[in-house]
Formats: sequence, structure tokens, C-alpha cells
Amino acid sequence: MDKLYIIKIGGNVIDNQQQLLSFIQSFASLEGNKLLVHGGGKLATQLATQLNIPQQMIKGRRVTDEATLKLITMVYAGYINKTIVSRLHASDCNAIGLCGADGNVISAHKRTSADYGFVGDIDKVDGEFIHGLLQQNLTPVIAPVTHDGKGQLLNTNADTIAQEIAKEMARLFKVILIYAFDKAGVMKDINNETSVIPVIDNKMFQQLKQNNIIADGMIPKLQNAFNAIDAGVESVIIGSATSLNELVNGRAGTIIQ
Amino acid sequence: MDKLYIIKIGGNVIDNQQQLLSFIQSFASLEGNKLLVHGGGKLATQLATQLNIPQQMIKGRRVTDEATLKLITMVYAGYINKTIVSRLHASDCNAIGLCGADGNVISAHKRTSADYGFVGDIDKVDGEFIHGLLQQNLTPVIAPVTHDGKGQLLNTNADTIAQEIAKEMARLFKVILIYAFDKAGVMKDINNETSVIPVIDNKMFQQLKQNNIIADGMIPKLQNAFNAIDAGVESVIIGSATSLNELVNGRAGTIIQ
Repeated sequence: MDKLYIIKIGGNVIDNQQQLLSFIQSFASLEGNKLLVHGGGKLATQLATQLNIPQQMIKGRRVTDEATLKLITMVYAGYINKTIVSRLHASDCNAIGLCGADGNVISAHKRTSADYGFVGDIDKVDGEFIHGLLQQNLTPVIAPVTHDGKGQLLNTNADTIAQEIAKEMARLFKVILIYAFDKAGVMKDINNETSVIPVIDNKMFQQLKQNNIIADGMIPKLQNAFNAIDAGVESVIIGSATSLNELVNGRAGTIIQ
Repeated sequence: MDKLYIIKIGGNVIDNQQQLLSFIQSFASLEGNKLLVHGGGKLATQLATQLNIPQQMIKGRRVTDEATLKLITMVYAGYINKTIVSRLHASDCNAIGLCGADGNVISAHKRTSADYGFVGDIDKVDGEFIHGLLQQNLTPVIAPVTHDGKGQLLNTNADTIAQEIAKEMARLFKVILIYAFDKAGVMKDINNETSVIPVIDNKMFQQLKQNNIIADGMIPKLQNAFNAIDAGVESVIIGSATSLNELVNGRAGTIIQ
């Protein structure tokens, strides 16, 4: 099977022009099949403040109301997606920007378990469609917006999108899923960038959780990583967006296996 | 050669939820190859006002400065494009939203003749790429944003995009180019919707111009239509977005030939 790199970029990197540009160049230079999933950064929240759109919170979670969904669609599927696509072309990478509605590549349904507003849980990723794009030498760039097939756009977490795409593509490719963010990897001490744990297996993950060594925000990321491995993904790597080449070569970050 | 409908939707229809939805249903029901180009509507201007982004004018033309380009990319390539795509899927039309940067489908250069800001004049439409999408039974939905291949997004007039796509696709298809807007067609009397001129040829166009019968805003539209015909487009139809089926069947609007 051919290799496919699925890379999720998020966190502060999206908001930092210099870092984003440098990441884009590294990504463009990766050889072989690749796909990028991007998060949102802070621009949507900034715009919500400027436009006086109140950000409703229920139990510590932001509610995606209609006005917020509109903003998210504008910022994620519009500005950020097209900026990345256009800069990838400048680095000779034949990118195509998509949200889940485009070609029906990611269909979802509105979450019903609680009132999150217009949040979508993924039903299906169309792997054949993505495969077709890759065969045409296109590099898909996916924004974290899905749809329900009935005309409703939905806000879906970018980490989850990357994971679901990875699981689906594992039927056709040897998938390496990389979560590139603003930390060097999974660290024993969150304040010490040299404390990166190079390799974590499931047993070690349970111990790290029990001993409260891993930060709260990292636990769902790792859980998702193990789910992906269980579903056939070759490996999951978590590390800094500023060292993408090193992550790919196993010289930086944390490898989940 | 197979037929290809290229339909440009613009004007107030974009801002009118009811009319837009009804247009989308009519468009989705059109059989055969089709492609939609959409304009922007008033949302970008409204947002510019809300965000206190001043709209600079030079000689009566709006200048696309950096902040305005960002807004246009958000609104046109994000919100409007993805809303239309998701609603087309609800009507069983397998739509894919694109701006010119996606797959490098429309490359352009920044206009140099005057200071319009980030406005793009089209260099090339990739007809093979569009053909490939149509062969996969996809319906391209194109936002009026292009790029220069060097990482710069650009604002390009949607009428021009429709025309350039039509000219390029005329090599491969029998192209019917339809400009769907908020008037019934080219009218002798702008206040009388029953004064639509059913057919205009080039000779008649010159006479109508000389006698000041056609409204100023209509002249570049018609000139573009004749340019398209000269470049091999089968026919150009101008008329109301609320009667798309009638336009297609030649029972409404103005046919340019």
C-alpha cells in the first residue's frame, strides 16, 4: 500500500503568519500523498467580539448558534482555507480546499446528546472521493465544517475530522496521522519542552493517565490516536508544527503506537 | 458535443433567502452538465460597515484593499459558496465549491492598469480540470475569488469569471451561458418588465446603444455576451433568476446570438 500523510494543523500556528508560512512550505515539500486538515485559530472569536455576537456557553462549552456558524463558515471554510490553498500553490503543491459539503466528502448529523447548537458528528467520510483527488495529484485541504445533506452546515472539531479521514483512508493507504500543534509533543512536564515522551503505547497511556502526568487537554487527543491505531492507521505522531520534517522522520514529537 | 449550462447568479437574489432557495432547486433540477458561478450580494459590504472597514473609492470604483479582500474571501468563498453547495446537496445535486485557487482552476494577475487594489484579471481557466469534475458527475460552484499562483488571492468580477469559463469550455462542450439576475431580461423600458427584447444580435446591439435604449449597466454585460459568442459559446441568455427553467427553454429572458 502507498503511504498517505494526514496532517492536522491547529492551535496558535494558524494565527502566526510567519509560523504558518513556514509550516506550509514544509508541508508542500513532503513527497507522496498528503492531505491537510486545519483548525480555526482565534480569528472567528475575534470577529465575534467585533461584531457583538455573544458567545453562549453551556457547561463550559461554546454553543455554535446560527450567527457563530456563519462566522465559522466564513473564517474556516473561506479565509483560512483559501489562504492556505493559495500559499500551497505558491510552493508548487496542487492544493484543493474543501469543507465537508464539497462533493459530500464528510457527511454528519447535528449532535443531539446536548444543546451544542450546530455541531456535527461525522457519519461518513467519502474515501473514494479523496482517493480520486489524490490520484489526480491534488492535495486536499479540509476545513472543519461539515453538513447534514439536508442543507445544514455544521461545525465539527478538526481533530475528529483528521481522525475519521485517517480511519477511512486506512482501507486504501498506509496512513501516518500527524497532529501538528504548538507543543513539542506529549510532555512529562508541560513547562519543559525537553521532557517529550518519544513513544507511547496503550499500556503506558493508562499509567500516565492514572498518575496524572498528562495534561487534561492531551487525554482526548491521545484517546483519539489509539482509536485511530485500532482502526488500522499505521501510526499517529503528535508534535510541533515548526518541526514537521522531523516529525515525519521520527526525529521529534511523540509517536503513538 | 454535449451541452453544458454555465449559470451566473448575482444581484439581489443572493441576499433573498426565499428566492435563492427557489433558484437552487431549479438549478439542481436541470439535467445534464452544469456549473454555477455566484456573485457576492450585499453581505460583504454590510460586514465592512459593521467592522468599520472603510470602503475606499477611486473614480467611482471600489478599491479592494487587504481588509476588503479578507472579507470578500470570507463571505464569497466561505459563507455564500458553502451555503449554496450544502443546499444543492439537499436537492440531490452533487456540488463542489471552488474558488480560483482550488486546483488552480482560475489563475489571474493583479490588475496593473490602475490602482484597484487586489483585483485579478484572468490569465487561464483550467478547462481540463473542470471537465474532470463534470465527468465525475460533480457540479462546480465557483466563487468570484482567484489567485496569482504566488500566494495572493484576488477579487475577480463574477460575470467575467462566467464568461471566461464559458469561452474555455466551448472547446469541449456546446455551452449555454446564462446570466440570471433580478430583471426579466434586456428591456426597452427599464420600468416595464413586459418590454423584454427576446433576441438581440450584434447589429441590433449597436443600434440600441446608439439610441440610448439600453441601461448603462447592461452594456458591458451585452458586450461580454458577444465576446463569448465570438469565442465559440453556443448562446448567451440574460434573464430573471426566478424563471431559470423558462430561460433554459427559451420561453423567457433575452437570447444573445
